[in-house]
Amino acid sequence: MKKLILDLDTGIDDTLAMSLAMASPEAELIGIIGTYGNVYMDQGLRNDLAITDLFGKDVKVYRGLEHALKKDSFEVMEISSFIHGKNGIGECQIPDSERKPEEIAGVDFLIEAAHTYKEDLIYVPTGPLTNLAAALQKDPSISSLIGRVVFMGGALTVPGNVSDWSEANINQDPDAADYVVKHINTTMIGLDVTLQTLLTTKETAKWRELGTERGKFLADVTDYYIKAYEVTAPGLGGCGLHDPLAVGVAIDPDLVECLPINLMVETEPPLRGRTIGDLSRLSDPVKKTQVAVRVKKEQFLDMLVSRLSSLAA
Amino acid sequence: MKKLILDLDTGIDDTLAMSLAMASPEAELIGIIGTYGNVYMDQGLRNDLAITDLFGKDVKVYRGLEHALKKDSFEVMEISSFIHGKNGIGECQIPDSERKPEEIAGVDFLIEAAHTYKEDLIYVPTGPLTNLAAALQKDPSISSLIGRVVFMGGALTVPGNVSDWSEANINQDPDAADYVVKHINTTMIGLDVTLQTLLTTKETAKWRELGTERGKFLADVTDYYIKAYEVTAPGLGGCGLHDPLAVGVAIDPDLVECLPINLMVETEPPLRGRTIGDLSRLSDPVKKTQVAVRVKKEQFLDMLVSRLSSLAA
Repeated sequence: MKKLILDLDTGIDDTLAMSLAMASPEAELIGIIGTYGNVYMDQGLRNDLAITDLFGKDVKVYRGLEHALKKDSFEVMEISSFIHGKNGIGECQIPDSERKPEEIAGVDFLIEAAHTYKEDLIYVPTGPLTNLAAALQKDPSISSLIGRVVFMGGALTVPGNVSDWSEANINQDPDAADYVVKHINTTMIGLDVTLQTLLTTKETAKWRELGTERGKFLADVTDYYIKAYEVTAPGLGGCGLHDPLAVGVAIDPDLVECLPINLMVETEPPLRGRTIGDLSRLSDPVKKTQVAVRVKKEQFLDMLVSRLSSLAA
Repeated sequence: MKKLILDLDTGIDDTLAMSLAMASPEAELIGIIGTYGNVYMDQGLRNDLAITDLFGKDVKVYRGLEHALKKDSFEVMEISSFIHGKNGIGECQIPDSERKPEEIAGVDFLIEAAHTYKEDLIYVPTGPLTNLAAALQKDPSISSLIGRVVFMGGALTVPGNVSDWSEANINQDPDAADYVVKHINTTMIGLDVTLQTLLTTKETAKWRELGTERGKFLADVTDYYIKAYEVTAPGLGGCGLHDPLAVGVAIDPDLVECLPINLMVETEPPLRGRTIGDLSRLSDPVKKTQVAVRVKKEQFLDMLVSRLSSLAA
């Protein structure tokens, strides 16, 4: 059976991603590594433990790195707090877990899991790529061990969302992202496709109608996110399903069509944080990255809504 | 039979594009409209007349617009003179034609041809999109008349060549390009694919070996271009076949695989001249632009080298 590790900065869409993973029988969710981004890492770990508890799943949670590779600190951006709430889950109040993060560091857990599960391991980072880059630097052999890496981040054929050229996850640590796309085969689930997958209050109402605590939680956090989108992206008519789409594709690769390309991430101004084709590897017949450019949006939306309904029932 | 109109700023790769069109039986080259870019328009017209004469083809040549829609003048960039030579054809000396450009303006010729030939008309601009934008603004009905528009320009998945985000043709008139991609269905042959199609001195030697004036001309102009590429793109190992690939795809659409997308061109700083997906039309099921992202390079190279060999024999 496939084994799934998520790398989350939880985060509302991380919450949906985690929920989809817990609701999916195709792969066993064997751990969550925390990262920074939508929230500070400690807040994210707290949310990971509390949410897995809420859904009655004993998923182990691991500490990741707390800031970008070449920085020594991290501050949550104001826009992140606006979109996800200060606590990362839209100010919803759910009980703290009594569990704690594991002793072993997230980077070491990933390396161990790569050696243990090899091609059965699917790694899905939905925040900055710092943990994965650190693991690849610590043990380069994992690049040929891990079965698949499906990351949410980047924007190849559309503008970015923190600047005209940079997507939020990549923008947090362009150096890590550049290292990752050059050192391991990945599938990139970027804004190219995630902005095509919209969830509206029509769908969240289905979770609310279940009348369960879990259904109310999923509806409340997602409605908070949809409200923020009404301000940040008024024309869109819903919220983008960034992180859950990465989990969806990890489970069912046929949800997207991909452009094979050798990518780089700009690490220097003025376009720091841009994901773009690497001219020096343009004619290399081997392409390390599969960039998702088309998505079966109805199929994915059905999958997400129905699986989370079952999970929350 | 298909009718072909080229819109050229001739230019060395325009010379190869024009030669490929003259050498191809699938479509009749019914006219060339001049534009500015690699050279001033008058120099380009002079080259168009002289080159068609050299190959014994009586192709009519029309005056286009001499500068961008929102500018009132145009200066050849230093890098253009370096790449194409001051005379646009690598300082090769071929006789002036005794013919002159037609009386009717290029924009009007295009509009007339659209109404006359309708779906049989293929329009291939390989310079700025100024003439096409002006024609669309003068007679919007041509957008649904012209059979196909295949333009060389832009860079969607790779960096630009005049700046990190802008390709030379688009950069000359981003306003015209933005108008075109929003008002008519096009196929974009951008740096994404043209930098994958390399011609080397190995191929130009075949033209030289023909021992004809025409073969020597094709080899001389192209070798000039390859030498410039050794300076501007030292790692590439040849010259990019920008403009001829657009003609190749006009004749044989199967040479490329395309990503259907609704494009825009940034018209404001800092990214003026960037070709990128238009978020406001991201979920529109109808896509106006087919962006070439993969190319059958050997097949195209064979086509170009063999057809130009026949033409020059």
